[in-house]
Amino acid sequence: MEQFNPVDHPHRRYNPLTGQWILVSPHRAKRPWQGAQETPSQETLPTHDPDCFLCPGNTRVTGDKNPQYTGTFVFTNDFAALMTDTPDAPESSDPLLRCESARGTSRVICFSPDHSKTLPQLSVAALEEVVKTWQEQTADLGQTYPWVQVFENKGAAMGCSNPHPHGQVWANSFLPNEVAREDVLQREYFAENGSPMLVDYAQRELKDGSRTVVETEHWIAVVPYWAAWPFETLLLPKTHILRITDLTAEQSSDLAVALKKLTSRYDNLFQCSFPYSMGWHGAPFNGEENSHWQLHAHFYPPLLRSATVRKFMVGYEMLAETQRDLTAEQAAERLRAVSDIHFRQSGE
Amino acid sequence: MEQFNPVDHPHRRYNPLTGQWILVSPHRAKRPWQGAQETPSQETLPTHDPDCFLCPGNTRVTGDKNPQYTGTFVFTNDFAALMTDTPDAPESSDPLLRCESARGTSRVICFSPDHSKTLPQLSVAALEEVVKTWQEQTADLGQTYPWVQVFENKGAAMGCSNPHPHGQVWANSFLPNEVAREDVLQREYFAENGSPMLVDYAQRELKDGSRTVVETEHWIAVVPYWAAWPFETLLLPKTHILRITDLTAEQSSDLAVALKKLTSRYDNLFQCSFPYSMGWHGAPFNGEENSHWQLHAHFYPPLLRSATVRKFMVGYEMLAETQRDLTAEQAAERLRAVSDIHFRQSGE
Ligand SMILES: O=P(O)(O)O[C@H]1O[C@H](CO)[C@@H](O)[C@H](O)[C@H]1O
Ligand SMILES: O=P(O)(O)O[C@H]1O[C@H](CO)[C@@H](O)[C@H](O)[C@H]1O
Repeated sequence: MEQFNPVDHPHRRYNPLTGQWILVSPHRAKRPWQGAQETPSQETLPTHDPDCFLCPGNTRVTGDKNPQYTGTFVFTNDFAALMTDTPDAPESSDPLLRCESARGTSRVICFSPDHSKTLPQLSVAALEEVVKTWQEQTADLGQTYPWVQVFENKGAAMGCSNPHPHGQVWANSFLPNEVAREDVLQREYFAENGSPMLVDYAQRELKDGSRTVVETEHWIAVVPYWAAWPFETLLLPKTHILRITDLTAEQSSDLAVALKKLTSRYDNLFQCSFPYSMGWHGAPFNGEENSHWQLHAHFYPPLLRSATVRKFMVGYEMLAETQRDLTAEQAAERLRAVSDIHFRQSGE
Repeated sequence: MEQFNPVDHPHRRYNPLTGQWILVSPHRAKRPWQGAQETPSQETLPTHDPDCFLCPGNTRVTGDKNPQYTGTFVFTNDFAALMTDTPDAPESSDPLLRCESARGTSRVICFSPDHSKTLPQLSVAALEEVVKTWQEQTADLGQTYPWVQVFENKGAAMGCSNPHPHGQVWANSFLPNEVAREDVLQREYFAENGSPMLVDYAQRELKDGSRTVVETEHWIAVVPYWAAWPFETLLLPKTHILRITDLTAEQSSDLAVALKKLTSRYDNLFQCSFPYSMGWHGAPFNGEENSHWQLHAHFYPPLLRSATVRKFMVGYEMLAETQRDLTAEQAAERLRAVSDIHFRQSGE
């Protein structure tokens, strides 16, 4: 009988952080595509757009005027999904119609005054300021809320409604689904193995190398063994760090370098502004002993074959199980094969 | 202090079928939208397209020629995500890099020879044949595989690569994620309450009515209390049925009626061909006592505000928790407010 080979044979891989399986069908990448085409944003944008509600000096829909900011700029979302003062919902023991009230807030983080730039096009110094802003927001909101979700939606394909470089931070009075799951599974791993799951995992990947995309002095980015999205990556510090607020000055500066390299490789892959959702997970601010936690960032980019053909997580994926068409190792190899200097940044 | 009101106040609802929470932000529907616009398929398609690989008599990419079929037509996917003969993967007890081999098959189900039609535009008799085909496929593949996933991806927004009315059926040698989760949670509910979760739930919704979208003699479709997608529905038989293969002839015919009404309401909401992924869940073919299971279909449609503005499950949703902008009751009310006769079907 033929021997199993992960490059030819469909198989499932297990995500130990979420307890979910992913179906890998590496032989399937050859099928023809007649479906939807994304519109890549190849156009050059102006550095200031008078109609953009995030540009310095412009007036937002609420009438508030943005300051003439020069670095990052943070304000409370004019259409926040959460409110700080929601009253408690009545208690109920109904097993079918369960509801609880939710409190929180939602802020917008402009990464740069320059409307035309994205993260990989910012200088390392500007990226250091982005990292500092993420840290300040996390520290500030972590005083009130057990969960602070820092994230960025980039590109129209990811529902981003404005190309101005920006991310968001949502604070929650509860531990959201994905985080609650990671919390339980990291705790179980720690109890069984005596060390944090993702600290062990980073060590394994540092030795293996086949899934590594970027390595800097303090950071490693890999296409995780259990990646769901075609070019998904997991960005990890090399040492045990609970939260983004716990990074040393050196680790923070080096994070700016890692971010620049990783997002440049993404853009270089299909020579376009690579859409993604990314965000940070670290130990919750819940007053518990959280040594099972390890800080990490997830990057979930949808593109599959080119700047215009994406992976759709639909049908079988929604009803049954996430499915991918290339192995994590194949994806990492392709990201390693392109430069870590951005294709629009010449002569540096 | 103000009283909690689910129409004004952000809250979380619990999905007892998957164990996940959904963040509901009903005050948020007012935010402006400057993001991606979907292209609705308003164009009239020909009844036969010589370039379509699903139309009767046409040749597919593999060289196989479709028969001159007149009802439904089923063939094995030319680019199946699964193979029937994958060898076993070597056993491993690695907690971080876990993999298992996967076997199965994947078939395409053409719903009609008419390239220009979608489910709500088929006659009840033609829909009865679709139901019969789903039943035959489930019975056939259930002899070999523990899981048979029947589903349809409809519309370019849902990654559908061909407008010819068709669905798919994937059979698996394993219980996929979503199903494994529903299995565990339905089993727990049954152990605690002595009756199947979704049988109880249908009873509650039949009495309540505020989330009901379609009711026929044997079926009810509701926007479930825990809906994630804006106009998501759950289609349930009124009595306890394990699998689609267990329906009586009467329940099967009435299902055709329910499907026609539900999908017509969808199209009527924004006067367009409403994109969605839908699929069936029933008791697995795993040789176990499965009385905790109840047959049901999920409809996951992405549109939010109009034929061109969809909900994106990105950023916060991917990193933290699913979020929606209108309550399940508001969505049901809007679907009830439109006719259950398709807007293009006049004079019938
Ligand atoms: O099989 P199709 O229609 O070519 O492909 C579509 O449905 C599949 C099953 O849901 C998905 O895995 C693909 O991402 C999607 O594009
Ligand atoms: O807040 P935005 O950018 O307007 O909206 C986007 O991000 C949100 C948070 O991930 C999502 O809930 C929305 O579906 C998406 O369109």
